Amino acid sequence: MRIRLDIAYDGTHFRGWATQPTLRTVQGVLEAALARIFGETDAPRLVVAGRTDAGVHARAQVAHLDLNEAQWARLVSDRRAQHDPDPAVSLARRVNGIVRADGDVVVTASSTAPAGFDARFGAVWRRYQYRVADDITGYNPLERLYTTAVRAELDAEAMNEGASRLIGLHDFAAYCRAREGATTIRTLLEYSWHRDGAGTLIATVRADAFCHSMVRALVGACVAVGLGKLTPDDIVHLRDAGQRASDFKVLAAHGLTLMEVRYPADELLAVRAAQTRGRRSLDGPGAAE
Amino acid sequence: MRIRLDIAYDGTHFRGWATQPTLRTVQGVLEAALARIFGETDAPRLVVAGRTDAGVHARAQVAHLDLNEAQWARLVSDRRAQHDPDPAVSLARRVNGIVRADGDVVVTASSTAPAGFDARFGAVWRRYQYRVADDITGYNPLERLYTTAVRAELDAEAMNEGASRLIGLHDFAAYCRAREGATTIRTLLEYSWHRDGAGTLIATVRADAFCHSMVRALVGACVAVGLGKLTPDDIVHLRDAGQRASDFKVLAAHGLTLMEVRYPADELLAVRAAQTRGRRSLDGPGAAE
Repeated sequence: MRIRLDIAYDGTHFRGWATQPTLRTVQGVLEAALARIFGETDAPRLVVAGRTDAGVHARAQVAHLDLNEAQWARLVSDRRAQHDPDPAVSLARRVNGIVRADGDVVVTASSTAPAGFDARFGAVWRRYQYRVADDITGYNPLERLYTTAVRAELDAEAMNEGASRLIGLHDFAAYCRAREGATTIRTLLEYSWHRDGAGTLIATVRADAFCHSMVRALVGACVAVGLGKLTPDDIVHLRDAGQRASDFKVLAAHGLTLMEVRYPADELLAVRAAQTRGRRSLDGPGAAE
Repeated sequence: MRIRLDIAYDGTHFRGWATQPTLRTVQGVLEAALARIFGETDAPRLVVAGRTDAGVHARAQVAHLDLNEAQWARLVSDRRAQHDPDPAVSLARRVNGIVRADGDVVVTASSTAPAGFDARFGAVWRRYQYRVADDITGYNPLERLYTTAVRAELDAEAMNEGASRLIGLHDFAAYCRAREGATTIRTLLEYSWHRDGAGTLIATVRADAFCHSMVRALVGACVAVGLGKLTPDDIVHLRDAGQRASDFKVLAAHGLTLMEVRYPADELLAVRAAQTRGRRSLDGPGAAE
């Protein structure tokens, strides 16, 4: 049986999603809870939609895990699950009962996954938000853990113009940390900047998938535009040059939050996952992290 | 010369506003910065609009300080102040240069105070916000430092009904921690509950002034109404009984934020401060903390 978990966390005190020996990570904390529920032997492992870096937050991360028959039977027999039409619903309560003391990670929902569901390969797109406070915004101490401060006045209109020109199917090598043998071709579906009611600059960045540190590089390039150090043309040329450049900074992790992961309708799940397991080319559709 | 400071802070790592020996407080951190700027001898002291408790936050706290002639001359001679029409404007930059490393307190503005300005006695009203997440809201780890979690479903309509019936000029002894010789009569100008876009319950509480722990008691009473433990009638009767009751909890400090302090127009400042220095009675106007 495959179970889908919806997860939210404050990344401040995590060394990212992925399990690392001796370091506190989101996957590590959640898998330790699963091991307490199902036993250390054959403890379920999590497969995640977006492997977030140290310090990155998530409002709506998605992961799946597989239970064997004995583990599923144990879940169904839990007395608190008796009134749930879907026994998987009770898993969120049980995990939260273990991780609640920390308070910075929570399973917001658990459910039996539809046939063919794969949290990583089934995702159609991921949407991130990046928050920047500049001199126009003012500095709000209550937002500082989730917002990057830039001590200058940024030109939001120029940033939005630059962002809009990066959209589309491209090789984003200039905006990715290189990884051996991994493609850097992605479809950037949405990239825009606006100021919220408090004047905070909010970037919305949505793509089929992202390569490593890509959102923070895209955001850093537009902040350089907002500072007048680069033009919207420059960041398009940098992208097309295809090499990681030093003309802009990869911004700090704490301003970044994974907001949403979208999956296709249930009947299309298996098709989607099969498509995206293949490597991608400029000609083909699909996505993989 | 009197200077007005506008201040914002995250109360999480402060033991409240007021200076305490050996404990980190907002007043303590800011006065230490002022002592570095103006010297330990005759270092300016702060007078504040709302003495917040340990853990309480502020988006817009107000304080004043008085400079003697030598201190004012020192401020005016600062080269960074040369281009400001009001030399007091540079004080925010200088204080922030010292406290910036911590990041949880900032002087958002400084200015020469108008004649008769008194941050404490001149205030017409204070407005607080209290944030509660219940089972309808869901638990958001990114809001946990500024929102109190209640593990039940709250009836927002009943809470708002109860809140509206507490408004007016009353003796709020039932909702105050007793303080020898201090009146507990206050004018509650506004008290309402609504859910924001994310479903978080937001209380807006505005009064001429508040006695100790009054907002958190008023909020606790309405949460008891939201839980069905008390009726809106009950909390009015409790108020009129005039004695601190155990029928509800004083909610946790971290859900509370001081949002705004309002002062009268400049020409009425002196009149206001003189009025409110007097003790208040049920017959009289005015307010003091």
